Amino acid sequence: MIDKLVKKIQQTDAPVVVGLDPMLSYVPEQICKKAFDEYGETLAGAAEAIWQFNKGIVDAVCDLIPAVKPQIAMYEQFGIEGLQAFQKTVAYCKSKDLVVIGDVKRGDIGSTSAAYAVGHLGKVKVGSRICQAFDEDFVTVNPYLGTDGILPFVDVCKEEHKGIFVLVKTSNPSSGEFQDRLTDGKPLYELVGKMVDQWGADLVGTSGYSAVGAVVGATYPEMGKILRSIMPKAYILVPGYGAQGGKASDLVHYFNEDGLGAIVNSSRGIIAAYKQEKYSRFGAGAYADASRQAVIDMISDINEARKSR
Amino acid sequence: MIDKLVKKIQQTDAPVVVGLDPMLSYVPEQICKKAFDEYGETLAGAAEAIWQFNKGIVDAVCDLIPAVKPQIAMYEQFGIEGLQAFQKTVAYCKSKDLVVIGDVKRGDIGSTSAAYAVGHLGKVKVGSRICQAFDEDFVTVNPYLGTDGILPFVDVCKEEHKGIFVLVKTSNPSSGEFQDRLTDGKPLYELVGKMVDQWGADLVGTSGYSAVGAVVGATYPEMGKILRSIMPKAYILVPGYGAQGGKASDLVHYFNEDGLGAIVNSSRGIIAAYKQEKYSRFGAGAYADASRQAVIDMISDINEARKSR
Repeated sequence: MIDKLVKKIQQTDAPVVVGLDPMLSYVPEQICKKAFDEYGETLAGAAEAIWQFNKGIVDAVCDLIPAVKPQIAMYEQFGIEGLQAFQKTVAYCKSKDLVVIGDVKRGDIGSTSAAYAVGHLGKVKVGSRICQAFDEDFVTVNPYLGTDGILPFVDVCKEEHKGIFVLVKTSNPSSGEFQDRLTDGKPLYELVGKMVDQWGADLVGTSGYSAVGAVVGATYPEMGKILRSIMPKAYILVPGYGAQGGKASDLVHYFNEDGLGAIVNSSRGIIAAYKQEKYSRFGAGAYADASRQAVIDMISDINEARKSR
Repeated sequence: MIDKLVKKIQQTDAPVVVGLDPMLSYVPEQICKKAFDEYGETLAGAAEAIWQFNKGIVDAVCDLIPAVKPQIAMYEQFGIEGLQAFQKTVAYCKSKDLVVIGDVKRGDIGSTSAAYAVGHLGKVKVGSRICQAFDEDFVTVNPYLGTDGILPFVDVCKEEHKGIFVLVKTSNPSSGEFQDRLTDGKPLYELVGKMVDQWGADLVGTSGYSAVGAVVGATYPEMGKILRSIMPKAYILVPGYGAQGGKASDLVHYFNEDGLGAIVNSSRGIIAAYKQEKYSRFGAGAYADASRQAVIDMISDINEARKSR
């Protein structure tokens, strides 16, 4: 799957992923109204609204980008019905040949991590039959529990040709509270980065990249530069561009010399583009066209920086 | 909710929580067969099997214990249908007046943690109406992203009188890989423990304990003793007793002098008790009676240690 991701990045010339993190406040009124008329102001109504909203955006941008990253929390807040919308979104994006990165940040001890891994990336045995649950292509994983929380995911990646992105240095303001702590003179995120390199050593594809990637926030470019060199085979998933303050020029060193090695996420900046002054001419009725224009602008912004590497 | 938990621990004289982490391999054949006959060997069949299995155990043990801890991964592996079984389990346990600790180990940055918090502990606004999704009493939370990943949970706890248990030192063999790293001469878990104490400072109930608790594995008793003193107001949720190797005598110092302050989890050791030689006399047909006897034995084991404090 990492090879498919790399190939699609090359084909689209777009090291960009659109974060499908729908808040109800982003969904244009006409979509909410229709969903609420049909299902009421209920969890099912909310789920229908975010699903229709997503569908519009995916239809408008799917030819431009290699991948999407639905954030499961935004669906899970609407319970079972929300998770059905997550599942429909995953399946729909896959039907459009997009690589789907489930931003689930799961992580637990051995057998429990294994359950998450089969639920999101693999297959589960029920009696004599094999079933599939959410079936994303990649998921994000939290490393706080150490190697035996990660290896069950690695095993499933190997069997199913899927991938993970391990949280190394997150984009939020207080990420340094624990992640930056010096241990033997080095920050913790470097230690996690070294482990990412090791966890992924056996899973390097023909692209030269491993199925075990890393999350490194756009908001910490100096750290991104160091992590790039610590984990040469890891694809870096970069949140924090745009709405969170990360600039394209900060991201030059997240890429390798081959112009590959990083994929930059934008969520709100794309899916709620029509709410920005810059794209307000589209209006709520053409929210998906606004998202398409925002994707085009983002690709050009990122590529300018990437190509100055 | 922390006060309710403490009160129920006192009423039952049982600082014990039963982990509802059903694997299909634990479910007696007659229950699987009935579920598969009705729903096929499908995700729905698996979900029905684990739900009926849980219901039997809950009915058999609910008068003995204060709380249950369903591990969501074990349900999530069966997709939407599995999560419906999780939701039914949560609701059923609450109807039996058990405190429900959702072992979800969620954690993300600001607005995303807020979505998890409302989905699991709070309420979500849909149009002009207020809806509820999973509605556990407590959840477990991963601290790797720092304070701004935790505070949205704390805020919801304050509003809804719910609680969280933050992962501090987990029970698994490689938990030390990152959690034990020395930073300024102290292991990282102590730093996280100090933050737990701070995060919970405003949420101390009439019981003297805070709605912000901590997870500390039974398998690291020396660390448990230190963490107890660092976080005097935090209730400690203790996994790792029994099947993972933690012994009751190791847990003496997880309790405060009031005999409170810790609640010990057992999952496999209770729910799959009938598979142990010790309880094999019950047989698969009376699996729930085996679980009841295992709970009685566990309470007596833990209390012997606790009362020697």
